[in-house]
Amino acid sequence: IEVGDNTSILALLEEVHHADIAEILDEISTEEATYLIKLLDSEKTSEALMELDEDYREEILDNLSPQEIADELNELDTDDAVDFLSELDEDIQRQVIDAIEDEEHARDIIEMLRYDEDSAGGLMAKELVRVRETWTVAGCVRKMRAQAQNVTRVHSVYVVDKNDHLIGRLSLKDLLTAEAKSNISDIYIPNVDSVNVHDTAEDVARIMQKYDLEAVPVVNDAGVLLGRITVDDILDFIRDEADEDYRMAAGISQVVEADDNLLKLTRARLPWLLIGMFGGLGAASIITGFNSIFETFPKLLVFVPLIQATAGNVGVQSSAIVVQGLANDSLKGNIAGRLLKECALAIINGLAIATVVLVISHFFFETTYLESVSIGVAIIAVIILAALIGTFIPIVLDKRGIDPAVATGPFITTSNDVFGILTYFLIAKLILGF
Amino acid sequence: IEVGDNTSILALLEEVHHADIAEILDEISTEEATYLIKLLDSEKTSEALMELDEDYREEILDNLSPQEIADELNELDTDDAVDFLSELDEDIQRQVIDAIEDEEHARDIIEMLRYDEDSAGGLMAKELVRVRETWTVAGCVRKMRAQAQNVTRVHSVYVVDKNDHLIGRLSLKDLLTAEAKSNISDIYIPNVDSVNVHDTAEDVARIMQKYDLEAVPVVNDAGVLLGRITVDDILDFIRDEADEDYRMAAGISQVVEADDNLLKLTRARLPWLLIGMFGGLGAASIITGFNSIFETFPKLLVFVPLIQATAGNVGVQSSAIVVQGLANDSLKGNIAGRLLKECALAIINGLAIATVVLVISHFFFETTYLESVSIGVAIIAVIILAALIGTFIPIVLDKRGIDPAVATGPFITTSNDVFGILTYFLIAKLILGF
Repeated sequence: IEVGDNTSILALLEEVHHADIAEILDEISTEEATYLIKLLDSEKTSEALMELDEDYREEILDNLSPQEIADELNELDTDDAVDFLSELDEDIQRQVIDAIEDEEHARDIIEMLRYDEDSAGGLMAKELVRVRETWTVAGCVRKMRAQAQNVTRVHSVYVVDKNDHLIGRLSLKDLLTAEAKSNISDIYIPNVDSVNVHDTAEDVARIMQKYDLEAVPVVNDAGVLLGRITVDDILDFIRDEADEDYRMAAGISQVVEADDNLLKLTRARLPWLLIGMFGGLGAASIITGFNSIFETFPKLLVFVPLIQATAGNVGVQSSAIVVQGLANDSLKGNIAGRLLKECALAIINGLAIATVVLVISHFFFETTYLESVSIGVAIIAVIILAALIGTFIPIVLDKRGIDPAVATGPFITTSNDVFGILTYFLIAKLILGF
Repeated sequence: IEVGDNTSILALLEEVHHADIAEILDEISTEEATYLIKLLDSEKTSEALMELDEDYREEILDNLSPQEIADELNELDTDDAVDFLSELDEDIQRQVIDAIEDEEHARDIIEMLRYDEDSAGGLMAKELVRVRETWTVAGCVRKMRAQAQNVTRVHSVYVVDKNDHLIGRLSLKDLLTAEAKSNISDIYIPNVDSVNVHDTAEDVARIMQKYDLEAVPVVNDAGVLLGRITVDDILDFIRDEADEDYRMAAGISQVVEADDNLLKLTRARLPWLLIGMFGGLGAASIITGFNSIFETFPKLLVFVPLIQATAGNVGVQSSAIVVQGLANDSLKGNIAGRLLKECALAIINGLAIATVVLVISHFFFETTYLESVSIGVAIIAVIILAALIGTFIPIVLDKRGIDPAVATGPFITTSNDVFGILTYFLIAKLILGF
């Protein structure tokens, strides 16, 4: 199909949704994709490009001229256009902005490039419907008609005073049912939640979720209405955050996908493996340090993997619960209380596991009574220690303003491995006295 | 405050948002919360109750009569009311439904209790604005006014034919700007995405995200419009799914929060710890099986924790990437290709780590050349094996319709521990010949 018959391609894709076009672009080669994008109407391709994977979009954009990129940006809301632009080199950025026809659109984009990507300013779009409190309903509908042409979807209508300060919002329902000659000031809802342009994306997500908002207006420090953030931007943000926590828990340090190239995947994965390696070497030193054990109680060495696995698992569980509690804001009470509870839980779990291990080690691995007791006591101690470390570290990180999610996964596993094995041998030494 | 002065409490809380009231309820005792709920207008308390933690809500509901619960339900959308009801015992459910004044509301709730909680039917609400294609714009606005009273927020207006089949949607923008005497059939948008009432919540989430929908209509097999699902319901669902994956990766088997009681936390955590324990005992058997090693090459035992940690970390990384790829639908290509890529990646990472370990073991732990080589080769082999297991298992689980997220965390760590240690000793035996 790709070599010629333009009109039939156009006819074929005319009714197709942009998300489906994105899927098509994803499956064909870069050259074919570039060809398609030049061929199709930019209204459709710009949205399809937005749906693509960043890396692949960059490849396609490299094949387009600044003018062609500008045509695509013309069709996008300011927030998407800025995401788009920020991936390009600075001098190409400038050329593209110069080539954008609509001067206001270009000015908005330049303004928004200034905001931090993870702030309310970085998330917001300038496109919104604003009405003055002094207008009448009939005049308002007339002016809204003009404004609405630039706004793909009308989420909310915001009411501003003569200095563009946000003073309320208007429900379309009320507008629809109000008399044509009544004033906006009589029907608008003066209570409106808004966020500051410098608020973090996390705060915005929290507010929107708490109050179930579909769109929230963004104001500057003086209360001037600058833009709006819609729930689908927040949806993307929440999903990205969850993905990031998940990646961190698994010891992957960068945004990677299974389809990225080997170098990128190695960069994301090798650092954590090296941390794990140094942990392993640390454990090796500890075992070497207790080398008298080899001669007297070689059977204790057999249970090192068990101790290590238990310490790692408990640590990951404890930290995950705390990290999730912090993320959901559902963590209450003080640190001491929380640590006490983890202790109690660790003792319950520890007793259960120690009992099973004690019996199995004695009967199947033929350890002496004293050896079995050492192993059992050590397991309980290791579980308590691992639970405390797993609980304590994320809380401390969070208090210091560091994302507690880094404390999950290999980080906690590694430190618990080392401390677990050390505890095991110390307790064995104490009880068995080698 | 809690002992008497009702009017000032009412005055104080009149302007407060229901989400904030939920926070207040969360911080006072159950008795005080019950008192407040009886005191306040049910329009506000019903929404506040929805925001509360399930367990706590149940406690409060136990203190209310069926009539009082029914009053709360009267104020809720059908989807929330059903969530609410499904937590109660069946005979209380029946009493509450009997006590609901609005018969249509009660009928809708009974209908919806039939749907599976995780299907489109379970997520949808019955409240929506529907218009007939044959109406005029003026008549439509009049009738919408009446319907809109039952609908808290107008997301979309759906157009149906005379048999209630969904045939399109109406944008409020068009309605606002259309002439009063034109027909709905002239201005409605005939292209509308919809989902079937039996579609899974996951499918609905995927469709809404792909097409950036804020609300999607739900139809039955015959195409009759039954309800609608809004993006905030999907937001909750996506967040729950992400939380669940995260919990599984951390080896927590149930929905728990840090503030749950010890029994619940133990039930969620002990099973995975027991799996880890049996893995550890398996490893112990393997080491015992290779017991000739104790005499000839005791230094090899020192590196068991290193092998185990590496195997576990690699396995978790590989499986997390696959699980996330499956969840995002971004995984392409066949299994063989993916396994080959993981192999290549494992060789790169393995070479890097093996080199470091080889040097350190030889110079710091004074292993012989042959011992060092054994350890290095074993590390590469273990990393390859762990990567393949980590990649293969989630893909197979997914093909069989099992949630691949169960394959992350302790499950993959445990199996990799055992296989890793076995591989290590087998390779050492091959090279060193003990």
